Formats: sequence, structure tokens, C-alpha cells
Amino acid sequence: MAKKAPSLMETIVSLCKRRGFIFQASEIYGGMGNTYDYGPLGVELMRRTKEAWWNSMVTERADVVGLDSAIIQHPKVWETSGHVAGFSDPMVDCKKCKGRFRADKLEDARCLERPSKQPGQCGGELTEPREFNLMFKTQVGAAEATSSTAYLRPETAQGIFLNFKNVMDSARLKPPFGIAQIGKSFRNEITPGNFVFRTREFEQAEMEFFVHPDEDVKWYEYWKAKRFAWYTEYGVNPDKLRMREHDQSELAHYAKATADVEYEYPFGWGELEGVANRTDFDLKRHSEATGENLLYFDPQTKEKYTPYVIEPAGGMNRTALTFMIDAYEEEQLEKDTRVVLHFHPEIAPITAAVFPLVKKDGMPEKAQEVAAQLRKARFTTFYDEKGAIGRRYRRQDEVGTPFCITIDGDSLSDDVVTVRHRDSMEQDKVKISELVTFLIEAKSNWKRPEKKE
Amino acid sequence: MAKKAPSLMETIVSLCKRRGFIFQASEIYGGMGNTYDYGPLGVELMRRTKEAWWNSMVTERADVVGLDSAIIQHPKVWETSGHVAGFSDPMVDCKKCKGRFRADKLEDARCLERPSKQPGQCGGELTEPREFNLMFKTQVGAAEATSSTAYLRPETAQGIFLNFKNVMDSARLKPPFGIAQIGKSFRNEITPGNFVFRTREFEQAEMEFFVHPDEDVKWYEYWKAKRFAWYTEYGVNPDKLRMREHDQSELAHYAKATADVEYEYPFGWGELEGVANRTDFDLKRHSEATGENLLYFDPQTKEKYTPYVIEPAGGMNRTALTFMIDAYEEEQLEKDTRVVLHFHPEIAPITAAVFPLVKKDGMPEKAQEVAAQLRKARFTTFYDEKGAIGRRYRRQDEVGTPFCITIDGDSLSDDVVTVRHRDSMEQDKVKISELVTFLIEAKSNWKRPEKKE
Repeated sequence: MAKKAPSLMETIVSLCKRRGFIFQASEIYGGMGNTYDYGPLGVELMRRTKEAWWNSMVTERADVVGLDSAIIQHPKVWETSGHVAGFSDPMVDCKKCKGRFRADKLEDARCLERPSKQPGQCGGELTEPREFNLMFKTQVGAAEATSSTAYLRPETAQGIFLNFKNVMDSARLKPPFGIAQIGKSFRNEITPGNFVFRTREFEQAEMEFFVHPDEDVKWYEYWKAKRFAWYTEYGVNPDKLRMREHDQSELAHYAKATADVEYEYPFGWGELEGVANRTDFDLKRHSEATGENLLYFDPQTKEKYTPYVIEPAGGMNRTALTFMIDAYEEEQLEKDTRVVLHFHPEIAPITAAVFPLVKKDGMPEKAQEVAAQLRKARFTTFYDEKGAIGRRYRRQDEVGTPFCITIDGDSLSDDVVTVRHRDSMEQDKVKISELVTFLIEAKSNWKRPEKKE
Repeated sequence: MAKKAPSLMETIVSLCKRRGFIFQASEIYGGMGNTYDYGPLGVELMRRTKEAWWNSMVTERADVVGLDSAIIQHPKVWETSGHVAGFSDPMVDCKKCKGRFRADKLEDARCLERPSKQPGQCGGELTEPREFNLMFKTQVGAAEATSSTAYLRPETAQGIFLNFKNVMDSARLKPPFGIAQIGKSFRNEITPGNFVFRTREFEQAEMEFFVHPDEDVKWYEYWKAKRFAWYTEYGVNPDKLRMREHDQSELAHYAKATADVEYEYPFGWGELEGVANRTDFDLKRHSEATGENLLYFDPQTKEKYTPYVIEPAGGMNRTALTFMIDAYEEEQLEKDTRVVLHFHPEIAPITAAVFPLVKKDGMPEKAQEVAAQLRKARFTTFYDEKGAIGRRYRRQDEVGTPFCITIDGDSLSDDVVTVRHRDSMEQDKVKISELVTFLIEAKSNWKRPEKKE
């Protein structure tokens, strides 16, 4: 029987493990469900994804500042926000196998009596659905008399609302302005995760943009357009992206409107980012719960108001996964096939690979010198002297390295190297003294190639 | 009665809140003990501190790669590492007030019957000391039948040992090589924290360097010197730093030798970073617990061995605090005093501030243009048009902005701006078209100024 070709997701998962992007967490202990560790290439991919978001949302803007709030906040925060009462999934227990499953996803249930790869429930009688809160709980403080239940944050947004006044006052801001944050959030997820698409801990990137209540619709439209464009700027195929407006029945209790940027994954359309009009719900709730004045007073108009909030909120792990899936190509060449990740050069985990053409005649030493020069200029640089040059190119194509730099006889005599471009496979001769400038230029001139699909 | 002058720590804490470096977490809910949120300037300070560490430990090196492992790993990991049994403080209960206190720090105890600012115990009878584990616990998984107690990691190092084999194989490494990680760790701290010096959640930066067992002493000395030098490269006063070797009685159960980089804080000498020779303890323990082969096989010598590990491990929050305390000066000038933070320009939260000399004649518009140009070049840039120019300089000195750029009449006619340097207060005239290059140059030429103490 012919072996079934692996699906694109299986291929990506396997590439991630083999080349050191993503490993299952605690793999040597049998693994930890819905939890992953990022290897040498994965951590660089994540660093660049977060940096690209921060550059676009904070550094390049005059009207947004950053924040980094704690994961374990005062427990009352989550009562006020509605998470203690409402952040839950409906669960049923099976009286036969004693398993607990999401009532709305019974087709994904994995019976405890036959925990095979095949989902399905054993047919036992089910209890009525009960709500199961997705927040992780812990105990804070040492003395039993004074310790209290606290929660790992399920979203970073509340940390921003808590600091609204402190940030506005210390940074002397007035609406419209935003506060942005990237950090870990935690959800006790039960449903299968599609690799790193849905995990128990994940890096959220959220920005709360505070505006005059009369201007919420304008800014909602602004941020929807802005965030959609960000993905295409980093090379994501616009034909695989769509903006989907939620209908009334889908809206969260705090939202006046929400739209999702969705991507067409191998497992179907999925949410990449949400843009929500959260109104003045959160600031008002926290003000009521604490008695703190969370209003903005406009010294010009003498108007006092609670700002409305437009929130673009995405997941950085999901974004990095999307960059990877979208960049993947098995490209038919004249004589063979190559696997290539067409990452945007700002996103690629390794920026430059340096090869001596052969392992003799001083070429390795010269290549090490060039590699050291690139590292000093803070390019993530990989040195490789093993195997045929064509094979070394292919190994870098597979992890998306945009530039391969080869040192040959000419390099020793004329200080000239060959730069080979990942997407076009074209080559340029470049003087070593001009290499850093050449690469910076080439990075900024990058265009997404047409994939032959 | 004369008001007592605030201590340096009080001054720093107050500056942090007023200017938006660091706020108490959940402040509007009455605060969360030993927990802090980083405001707009604090988050940039932390980002640069982490980036400086990563550049030095990963990007600029050929022999170290990065990792980002999960916070909640398999619970057995912490049994193997010894944390479940041994990561604890001795605690006593007071039979009178029911408070629980650290047996070795009774002078810091805060009696529950008089929870004033003044520490001290009520004199009630104390129980025998019992061990209290510092790890935060939580429950993972939905089904009661299958959910289990898990821990928030108290150190990032174990995540590196778990991935030793996966990283070594996928990145094709051989000893000596290192795996570096920056990420949050959590400890249920009871003792007073001295602001962000000791907090319940904190950003650790750890690197495990795997070496041949015969080379551990050589690499231990190498990393001690390297890490000590790193702080001085970023401007920390070497007279306030020392390297303290632990004596045998202080050593952790896994360590053959440990030395701390210590800084002289306003509250005394404190650990800034530890460099430890962890031997082959962790890899061997994990190998025994899982049955996994965690050896390195040298294809040249045919030797098989468990590498020894040299670990430089520091706290990024503590490092950022140290940068700030060390950079702080109340400088006597001819006519008055200025508060200035002499941050290394790579560390300063704001790189450039842009001012129109006056708020008219097209200067604000020109200044906004210049600010936008600097933001595009990814300098964190602050625009300010309020108040006298001298006052604007002082506001930036207080948060350590190395360059203030003023747009005046000449800027409009000749496209020339004035760059004022924070430390020397000297000024340069620079063409707008050359401003980015000028600032990059000035950043890299920075030298730590002599403080007049």
C-alpha cells in the first residue's frame, strides 16, 4: 500500500522539530498537553515577530506607549472584569468512563477508556453541562491566615486598564492614545490545539487605544485596516486573509463591535487577531469596583469623560505559525524540488549563513572572520562548512535564511564574497567591506515572491 | 522639625512612579505584595536590558543558541530537579497572632495583630520551624480524574536541560556550547523585597554552557570574568561591583563552585548574578528519571560523556534597577542642581527627545517631521513643545535621554538642528539629513562620565 503523503500541518510540525523551531514541552517526560517549547530557530522567529509588532505599534508611533504588567494581579481584578463569573466552557462528565468533555465539542472528546488517537466518546451517559472556568488558580502568600486564591491572567488587557491613570499621568498623554503590551497569558484549554494555534500559555500582543466616545467608530475602522495591512507588509498572502465582522450574537458582553482578521490554515479559516470596540465597559467597571476616578479631563473643552477603547489583540505564537505556514513552499526546479520558507527578511530566524566553498586553503578562517563581522553588526549568523555547497544552500532554504554568503578563492585575493538570494537563487558579488550595507539594503528591498501553486 | 531627606531608594521609587518606570501592581485595588508593573519608560528599559544580554550572550556568539521553554512543565520535572523536596524556606507559626514567618528572618516578621509599617513579632509562642515550598502550585487539565498539580517554574534553567538533546541534535552542536533563555520565573516570596530587587514574578536570564568534564574549571573562570565585564561595559561603576566566591557551606546541592557578581545597593551588597558550576548533576538526574540518553558522543574521539554545565544566571529586573541606581546623580551645577540618569545610550528608555524652540513659526511642524524620521529609524523618540527649553532638558535628564534635539529658526532655513548631549550638556549643530548617522555614532562613542560624589 502506498504511504499517504503527509498533510501540510504534519509537514510543518515535523520540520519544526527536526530543525529546532518548536518542540513538545517536557518531551522527555512524555510531554505536556497543549504546551510547547521554542528551540533556537523558534525563539528567534518569535523575537522578530514580537519586535515587528512592537515597532509598528509603539516605536514608530507618536501616540502609543508600552507597558509590562504582572501576570498575577489582585484577584478582585478578575471579578470586576467578569472572568471569574463568565470565562468558562460548558463541560459534561461521562458517568461510564469518568472523562470530562466540552459539551459544545463532543465530536473532539477523547474517551478515558480508549485514549487512542481517534477522538470519540464511549457512549456512556453524560451529566448536564456545567461551566468550567478556564483561568488557572494558585495560592499567593505564605501564612494560611492571609494567603489567597489568585489567578494567572487569561489576557493582558486588564493590566492595561489597571494602569490607565498612572500611564496617562506619568507620560502626559491625552486621548486619542494607546497603551500596548506583549506578554504571556494562560488558559486551561481542553480542546485540541492544532499545534501552537491554541496552547495553555501563549504570548499575547494587545493594544488598548483610548478615544473620545464620539470617535469610536472612526478609530475602530482605522485599526481594522491598519492591522490587516500589517500581515501583508510582512509577506502574508492577502488571498489567504480575510476580515470577518462578528454578528450581534457572537459579540462578547463588553463589545459594541468586533472583527477578526482570519487566515486560511490547512485546518480551515481561523482567527489570527481580533479588533474590538470595548466601549467604556472596563474602565467604568474598575472605577466602580475601586472608587478610583478613571476619567479623562480635557483642559481645553472642560469636558470630563470615560474614554472608549478600541483593542487590536493578537497571539504572537499564532502569528509566527502563520508566517511559517504561509512562507512554506515545495518549489519545483528544473531538476529537482526544494523546500523553502519565504520569510520576510526581518522575520527570518537566521539572517545570514556563511560558507567556505571548500574546507581548506584558508577559506574556513576567512569565512569565520566574515561571520564574526556580521554577528558584531547583530545579524543572526550561521556558519557551515559541512557537505557540498548546494546541500548547504538547501538546508538554509528550508529554514528561510534570506542570504547565503560563500567565501571562495576570490575572497582571499580580492576580499569579494558571493551573496546568494534565497527566493530568486540569484547571486551577487559583494566586497566584504560593503557586505553589512548590502544586506541592510537587500532586506529593505525584499518583495514577496509569487509562489508556483 | 526639619523633614528628613529621602534615602536614595525612596528617591528612586518615587521617580519610578512619577515618570512612569515602575508602578505597584494592582495599585487601584490596594496593591499586590512584592509585585510590580512596568510603565512606558520601564518597559523600554527592560526591553533594552534584555536585548543587551541577548546580544552579548547569543547574537554576537558562534557557540550559544537561544531557547524559550514553557512556564508550566510536567510536574515530575520539579521532583527530579529537587525543587519539590528542597526549594523551601523554614517557617514558624505564632500561636498568639496566627502569623507565619521565616524562621531565619524573624527580625522582619510583621505581626498580624499590629500590621503596621514597623516589623516585629508580637512575642507569642512560636512553633518549631517547618519547610514552606516557594513554588506556586496550580491545577492543569479539566477532568478531575486526569487533572494534576503542576508548578510555575521557579527557574528557567530546567527548561534548558529538558531540551538539551533536541537542541544539540537539531542545531548540530557539540560541546563547548551554550543554550540561553530569558523568561519569567515565579517564587512565593515572603521576605520584604527592596522594591523590584526581589519580587514574586521576575524575568530571569540564564545560560547553560555545556562543556567536557575536564574543562569545567577553565570555563567557570571564563564566564565569571565575562559576566563581570558585561556590567561595566554598560556603564556600571566597577567600584560598586565585586565578585564573591561562595564557601563550601553556601553551595547549593548541585554546585561544585559558585560566585556572585554583587553590587553595593543603598541597602547593602546584594547578588546581581550568580555563576555556578552545576556539574553533570541535572542532566544525569533527568536521564535517570526518564531513561533518556542525555550523553554527548564525540565522533572524533569516540568518547561518550555527560557534559558539565557552567551557568551564568541573572535577574533582568534586578539588572535594570541596578542600571538605574548606578546611573542616578544629583549633579551640582553653577547655579542649581539637576537630577540626571547617566544610562548607557543603548539602555536609555528614550533615545531622543525633539523640541521646537518655540511653539510657532512652523517649528512644531518641522520638529514633528524630525521626530517621525527618527521613529522610522526605530529610535524611541519623545516630542515635547511645552514650557521653557531649559525645563524640557531637565525633564529628559531625569529619565536619562542621551540626546535632545532642538529645532530653531536655522532649522527652517538651513535644515540644521542642535543636538544637546545629556552628560556633558555640550551642543552640536547637525544637518537633518545626517542626524540618524550622527546619533548612531554618538551612541557607540559614549563613555561613562565621572560622577562628582
